[in-house]
Amino acid sequence: MTRTRSSSEIRDASRRELVRALAVGGTATRTDLARATGLSAATVSNLVTELREDGLIADAGIDNGGAGRPTTLLRIDGAGGALLGIDVAETYIRAVVFDAALAEIGAANVDVDEAWASTDLIADAVLQAVSQAMERSGRQPDHLLGAGLGLPGLTSTDPRRIASTPAWATHIRDLEDRLRPHLPSPLVTANPLQAVGHSEVWFGTARGRSTAVVVNLGTGVGAGIIVEGRVLRGATRSAGEWGHTVLELDGRPCRCGRRGCVEAYVGVPGIRQTLHDVADGHDLLGLHQRDFVQGLGEAADDPAVAETLSRTARYLGIALSDIVAVLNPEVLTLTGWTAWALGDLLLPATRAALAERAPELTAARLALDVSPVRVNSVATGMAVLAFEHHLDTRALARRTRPRLDPAAVPVVTVPAPAASAPQPVAG
Amino acid sequence: MTRTRSSSEIRDASRRELVRALAVGGTATRTDLARATGLSAATVSNLVTELREDGLIADAGIDNGGAGRPTTLLRIDGAGGALLGIDVAETYIRAVVFDAALAEIGAANVDVDEAWASTDLIADAVLQAVSQAMERSGRQPDHLLGAGLGLPGLTSTDPRRIASTPAWATHIRDLEDRLRPHLPSPLVTANPLQAVGHSEVWFGTARGRSTAVVVNLGTGVGAGIIVEGRVLRGATRSAGEWGHTVLELDGRPCRCGRRGCVEAYVGVPGIRQTLHDVADGHDLLGLHQRDFVQGLGEAADDPAVAETLSRTARYLGIALSDIVAVLNPEVLTLTGWTAWALGDLLLPATRAALAERAPELTAARLALDVSPVRVNSVATGMAVLAFEHHLDTRALARRTRPRLDPAAVPVVTVPAPAASAPQPVAG
Ligand SMILES: [Zn+2]
Ligand SMILES: [Zn+2]
Repeated sequence: MTRTRSSSEIRDASRRELVRALAVGGTATRTDLARATGLSAATVSNLVTELREDGLIADAGIDNGGAGRPTTLLRIDGAGGALLGIDVAETYIRAVVFDAALAEIGAANVDVDEAWASTDLIADAVLQAVSQAMERSGRQPDHLLGAGLGLPGLTSTDPRRIASTPAWATHIRDLEDRLRPHLPSPLVTANPLQAVGHSEVWFGTARGRSTAVVVNLGTGVGAGIIVEGRVLRGATRSAGEWGHTVLELDGRPCRCGRRGCVEAYVGVPGIRQTLHDVADGHDLLGLHQRDFVQGLGEAADDPAVAETLSRTARYLGIALSDIVAVLNPEVLTLTGWTAWALGDLLLPATRAALAERAPELTAARLALDVSPVRVNSVATGMAVLAFEHHLDTRALARRTRPRLDPAAVPVVTVPAPAASAPQPVAG
Repeated sequence: MTRTRSSSEIRDASRRELVRALAVGGTATRTDLARATGLSAATVSNLVTELREDGLIADAGIDNGGAGRPTTLLRIDGAGGALLGIDVAETYIRAVVFDAALAEIGAANVDVDEAWASTDLIADAVLQAVSQAMERSGRQPDHLLGAGLGLPGLTSTDPRRIASTPAWATHIRDLEDRLRPHLPSPLVTANPLQAVGHSEVWFGTARGRSTAVVVNLGTGVGAGIIVEGRVLRGATRSAGEWGHTVLELDGRPCRCGRRGCVEAYVGVPGIRQTLHDVADGHDLLGLHQRDFVQGLGEAADDPAVAETLSRTARYLGIALSDIVAVLNPEVLTLTGWTAWALGDLLLPATRAALAERAPELTAARLALDVSPVRVNSVATGMAVLAFEHHLDTRALARRTRPRLDPAAVPVVTVPAPAASAPQPVAG
């Protein structure tokens, strides 16, 4: 039978909803919250009481603005706890500590080398970033409500196929096992696409949307898929691998070892290949990664660059049309550093190619834009995921052990996934 | 804010769940139903009472088999109502009347001509099929709990693009408006891909699955997408247009007017094109549609046919890998007459191409099979959709007007969709 959500699941969703509304909105009255979430006044009241007991909601003064009697404004109490988000990417590790209001209170970056063959080096780098970020936040480990670890995945475990992905990524399961005992608990894991999706659901264009797709453009590319307001994880937590869908049968070689993948055209190495096709030996080909992308943005008047951007926009529009045809989302959002750097240059031709290629009704009312969220979405998304997990767990503890001392909430460890899936999106 | 499901929505889902369990399982005790649906004993009891009052559930004897005391067996009472499912395809219209236990009690087919330019001819054919099916069922119109109309969609309204799709399909909105006053009410509409998805959720491989994809192979091809046990409709009810995603950039012309669509390779005209590429002038090219597909199945030893099937299996596996990469479903099911005729011949090479092409983790635990449901899934799916709508509507009436005379339930007409979306799948 299809699984139906239980009333406790509904209640968990409501609680997340309410916290999300406050975290994003800043302050709100109970009435505002009922309006924003669609929950009943009674449900809002009960949830507020619970969350206040847990120290997550505090008063923020009195609202005299309305027509009725003055009412109490509420806010998330940042001091009520902290959250750790970790982004393990191909070329760097970033750890960020947030307070309970999701304000960044400490962050650290550590560069990593794609050539490192051992997970030990990566694990050490992760722990170094985490300890620096914690130190900068001024919080103690026992302030943490939870942590989220975003791990790059792998699209293949066949060594012949992955010569060009980070060497250590073949041992991603080892890495997770190696890290888990040393990281705060509870620890949730996800792939970066799903983390970015969570970030957009909380802060970006996916808010309030039933079906939305967030496409991340960087070295690797992929999609976070939101259905009914939740990020789709898939049977093996690998949903969103749009970067390795086919754009051209038997086309360009992709670094995943296959041919004709979307990523081989609209990932940064793909864009380099296009410039190479257009003008072999072009100056910009001497630059790498972000410098290359920056260079393209600054040289848009150069005919070879203009042609490269034009082809890239077309490839992107056609590739996006596939995900639009299948999912028929309300909104489609581009994010990641390539999107931020080149979005304005690419969007008009991308929209045109998408409208030309997508089944007409699916594209008719679709909004395609670059995300307004310009932070490291992976770290934020992982912190948000850890927060959601904390809220659900805390509620479970309340249900199973009423009147429990908050300090004694059992630590629920999320089972490790079989492995953690797709291409790094923020490489 | 993301919409959270209300408790009445949960209750509606539970009611559908329970009816589904009985419709599929035949007979069950309340305890069986609680186990099958995951609902509490109290909820099952309340729902059974409601559904019994509505005449939809009847006793089916006593179960003495268990260890405990004898308990009442329940069944759906087929006489409790009837449902009409209508499949408007490119080359035929099929109307089927089901009793409330979803047993077929009357059906009629009317052939249609793709060249008909007027919706009047199609509308007349639909009404003729409906009236024949009703007559054969022996039920009166007032026995109907609802009707479902599956309409082929259009991927373009640009006349230059759709020369090869049915001429009348350009007027699909007119057709719906023209039919609505003459068809039973409430009338729900959906596209055939979504209808097939509903059918698989009730009777097929999507039962009990969180994420599942049902791919329909015929003249046109497309996918029914199930997420969290519900069929994904999308922002403009057009989700599932996998047939018009890109397999080969600037590849074969597709009848939608674009190039390189999946359908141009694995739809029946696409398979014909492949045979033509392999052996121009081959005998089988003289046959059309189902005869052609049947002929392929019978001539699998013919080297040109074998090569055609081998290429088709590869195209199909690669095209399926795209939807697997994006959605990471638990199960992937092939249905439709091409799948039924050629599935056994295609599956081994299709599975191999899919495993080779899909991101490894997404394919690792994926079950790919031909659906065991071998009926007209569109008509069944539309009847099921009408039944779900009836159950939800009836419950709404109960909530808003308690103790209402069942005969006085208000007729709720589902708003017509902007238009009804993708390619016909059962053409
Ligand atoms: Zn690839
Ligand atoms: Zn097409």
